[in-house]
Order: sequence, then structure tokens, then C-alpha cells
Amino acid sequence: MSRGLFLTLEGGDGSGKSTQASLLEQWLVGRDRTVVRTREPGGTPVGVEIREIVLHHRGDIAPRAEALLYAADRAHHVASVVRPAIGRGEIVVQDRYLDSSVAYQGAGRVLDAGEVRSLSEWAAEGLMPDLTVLLDLPWEVARRRLDGARTRYDRLEAEAGEFHERVRDAYLALAEAEPERFVVVDATEPVDEIAARIRARVEPLL
Amino acid sequence: MSRGLFLTLEGGDGSGKSTQASLLEQWLVGRDRTVVRTREPGGTPVGVEIREIVLHHRGDIAPRAEALLYAADRAHHVASVVRPAIGRGEIVVQDRYLDSSVAYQGAGRVLDAGEVRSLSEWAAEGLMPDLTVLLDLPWEVARRRLDGARTRYDRLEAEAGEFHERVRDAYLALAEAEPERFVVVDATEPVDEIAARIRARVEPLL
Repeated sequence: MSRGLFLTLEGGDGSGKSTQASLLEQWLVGRDRTVVRTREPGGTPVGVEIREIVLHHRGDIAPRAEALLYAADRAHHVASVVRPAIGRGEIVVQDRYLDSSVAYQGAGRVLDAGEVRSLSEWAAEGLMPDLTVLLDLPWEVARRRLDGARTRYDRLEAEAGEFHERVRDAYLALAEAEPERFVVVDATEPVDEIAARIRARVEPLL
Repeated sequence: MSRGLFLTLEGGDGSGKSTQASLLEQWLVGRDRTVVRTREPGGTPVGVEIREIVLHHRGDIAPRAEALLYAADRAHHVASVVRPAIGRGEIVVQDRYLDSSVAYQGAGRVLDAGEVRSLSEWAAEGLMPDLTVLLDLPWEVARRRLDGARTRYDRLEAEAGEFHERVRDAYLALAEAEPERFVVVDATEPVDEIAARIRARVEPLL
């Protein structure tokens, strides 16, 4: 039986996580590996309902409640999807994991990043990815990708930009703290070059 | 302004928590206090949706996910209902709080009781009740109250009975560890006598 692997993709919206996850999946399937493509939040039926609560009530949920809901989604997803797949020798390719919680909730400046991480680790019973791909992108570039037509920011949009820059800085700090687990790629590079860099890091793990 | 108070009622189903909460509320209102009657889980609109997930998917939710969902309900309820009411000098009379999580999830033998308690304390930012009423009742009596017509237990019902006895033991251990916070009453006593014992412990707090 092949060795199971847990690969996660991180980065802001518009950084190309889905594109790279698809390319990675195709390459792994071409090497006769079974791949489970999944995501958090919302990677299970329970998780879809949790995600629905978080989205439906956004703005009205206490910050700790929101963090606990994301952790609940993670706990169920890891126990019912991720660990069983790894145990079967499959490769889990997952869009967002605990680094998202730490980067986004930490950048929100309401909760302590260390506490958010502890919560996630408890939820996941300590399961860490074998490799985490960070698709690093300046917010201005992501913004242009997501909303190409507009170039001027109003005050609220500028604040959002500052928030996203804090998220980016938090991600880069996480990658710097765990260089063995992370591969940081410049998401402004061509898609095929990024995919090749990711494959080069995954190959020795197979 | 009057001093706000946080009073919780604990005990198994059928132990009379709702009856005693009503009598306590009437007595407090008669003394010109504003009372907020509430409960966990499900004391807020978000909490009702969380409770719906826990009930709807029961048996299919990972134990840590379930604990995190209850904690999320608690975090939102404390932040949006309990703390604001206490801050206004009102009296919160609440059916179930963190002792329920510790007693039930600990008795389920899957999760560590200390971890469940830490999770609740993080969710509630450390808010503890001024007084907790434990309505103590042997499971056989509760069972007869809930389902008077049946006297013979099958194997599954006997297992349930053992579970509920473990819950009872866990509650009594919690009360023993914090005698200043708890008042333990024998729930087989007459309703009015129980109510009088509770009032005697609440009165000095007013």
C-alpha cells in the first residue's frame, strides 16, 4: 500500500489555490495515486451546515463562537474524511486548513493567534499536513484578479486591503517558522511554473 | 443599580430544573428584580441552529466536533445574552451551563473532562455562575418520572441507566470540588421545600 499524504494549499482569495489543486491532482492521478480533493470549511455535510451558519449570521456571531464553529467543522472533517483517507494510503489535497484559521483570525486582531492554533490542534487531534503550499500574492494583485475593472479604492476597501496585507504577513510568518512543512511560491508567476515548483516538493514525499 | 447575578440550574432530565427555574423567577420578580430566563444549548438564534445540527446529525458527528459546537453555542450565548444582562444589573436564571458539558461529555468517556472544561472556559471567557443549583436525582427515579408506565429495562435501557449514573456521579464530584458555588438539593423532596432551599442560598447574593 502507498503511503498516505496530507497536502494543504493556503493563500488569500484569488491566489490560485483551486487551479493548483487541480493540476496537482491530475499529476498525482497520472502517477496512479488515489486523490481526495477536499476543503475547509464545508468539506462534509455537517461542515456545509456549519459554513451556512457562519455565512448566514456573519457580523452577528461572537468572535469566539465563530472560531469554535470553524474548529467544529475541522474536527468532523479530519475525523471523518482526512484521517480515513490517509489511513487507506490515499493523498488528501485540501484547500485551506489550520493555517487559514491562524492567519485570518489572528489578523482580525480580536483573538490570540496562539489560542486559535491550540483550538485547531485540539480539534484535529494534532494532525499536521505533510506539506503546505502557500500561494503568496500581494493584495493589490489579488484584488485586480478578482475585480479587474476597478482601480480606485474607497476608505472601506482600503481598510479591507490592510486586513488582507496582515493576513499575508501572518501566512509568511507561519511559513518562516516551519520551513520544512511549507513551500512558499510567488503566485504572480505563470501557472505552469508554480505547478512545477509544487511537484518538485511533493515528489520526494511519494 | 442592582448587582447582576448569574444563576444556573443543573441535573439530569426529569430532575425538575424548569419547575425550579420558574419558581425562582417568580420569587425574584416579586422582589422587583429583572430576570432573564435562558438556556444552553439554543438560547440564541445562532444557538438554535447549532442545536439543530447537533440533534439532526446525532451519531454522525465526531465527539470533538460535538464538543466544539456546544462550546460555540456557549460562546455566542454568553457574549450576546448573559454578560450584557449581568452588566445591566439583571439576574440570569439559566438551564444548564458548563457543568453539563463536563458531566455529560466526561461521562461519555470519549473526551477528557479537563479538556472539555478548558474549552468551555475559553468559550465563555472565564465567566462562572455566582450560584449553581444541582438537582440531584437517582436515574431510576428520573426514569419513572419521564416514563411512568414502564418498570422493566431492556439491555440498552440498562446501559443508558449506567451512563446517567456516571453523569450523576460527575455532577456530585463537581459540586464537592466547588462547595461555595454549588447548592446540592435532593430532587425527590417536595417542590416547595426545594424552592425554599434554593431561595435561602440566593437571598444573601441579592
